[in-house]
Amino acid sequence: MLGRTYENQICSIARTLEVVGERWSLLIIRDAFLGLKRFEEFRASLGVARNVLTERLNRLVDEGILERARYQERPTRYEYRLTSKGGELGTAVIALLQWGDRHLAGEAGPPRLVEHADCGGKVVAQLVCDKCGKAIGPHEVELKPGPALRELAA
Amino acid sequence: MLGRTYENQICSIARTLEVVGERWSLLIIRDAFLGLKRFEEFRASLGVARNVLTERLNRLVDEGILERARYQERPTRYEYRLTSKGGELGTAVIALLQWGDRHLAGEAGPPRLVEHADCGGKVVAQLVCDKCGKAIGPHEVELKPGPALRELAA
Repeated sequence: MLGRTYENQICSIARTLEVVGERWSLLIIRDAFLGLKRFEEFRASLGVARNVLTERLNRLVDEGILERARYQERPTRYEYRLTSKGGELGTAVIALLQWGDRHLAGEAGPPRLVEHADCGGKVVAQLVCDKCGKAIGPHEVELKPGPALRELAA
Repeated sequence: MLGRTYENQICSIARTLEVVGERWSLLIIRDAFLGLKRFEEFRASLGVARNVLTERLNRLVDEGILERARYQERPTRYEYRLTSKGGELGTAVIALLQWGDRHLAGEAGPPRLVEHADCGGKVVAQLVCDKCGKAIGPHEVELKPGPALRELAA
C-alpha cells in the first residue's frame, strides 16, 4: 500500500489506506496507542530502518495523525503524540487486533488485552445500529451509494 | 505492507496486516462485501494488473478469507466469496471507511452509506465495553499484556 495508489477510487476505505496503509504506518499508530513517543522507542519496537521510520513519521504528521512536540533543546529532539484525528483510528486498529486475536493468535492466546480504563471490562470493536441500537454482524449490513457517488452518477 | 514483514511482532494487528495488509487486499475484501465475485469484476473495480490480482486472490483464498467456487465449466471459471472468517473483517473495514468519511470525504460527503439491512438505520463501528455496556472512545481504552506476551516475559 504505497501512497497515492488508490487515487481513482471514490471510496473512504481506499482514501484511509492512502493515509495509513503504507507499510509500518498502522504499527506506528499502534505503538503511539501503547504510549510510545520517541523516535528511538518506535525504532526499537519496530526494528525498521531509520530513513523509513523518519519518512513514515513525517507523513503521519503531515496528515494530522501525529503531532510533533520538542522535548529537548540541545540537541533538538521531538516526540510524537496521536492527535484526536489519529486517536479516532483506535476503533479500526482494535477491530484489526481482535480479528487477529480470533483467527491468528493460536494457543498462546492474545498478545494484548483491550480493557475499559474505567471498569476493567473487555473492550470490543463492533458494529452497532444507530437506529435500533442492536449489535449487528457484517452480513446484516448493506452498503449503498452515498452523496459522493450519487453526485457522480447524476 | 508486503507479506511476512512483521514476522517478529507478537501482535495481532501486525499478524492481521500480514494477511490483509498487502496493497489491494483490503480493497478486494471491500469489493467482496459490495457483492463482486468474479475476476473481471474485481479487475474493473480496482484497475489493477491481472498478475497482481491473481496473486492477491490466491493469497486470500490460502488464508481462508475468500473461497473459490467454479461457476462455469468450459472454460473453467471461478468466483470468489467471503468466508465467515473473511466476513468478520467487516468491522475493521467499516471502521476504516468511517474514519475516511469523517476526515477525508470533503464536501461531496461519504461515497457509501452503511445501513442495517433490517431497519435501514445507520451502522456505526464502535468500541463497546463488554462489562458495563458503554460505548467508549479510544482514549478510554487500556492495552495490557495478554497471555502470549506474559508467557514470553515469564
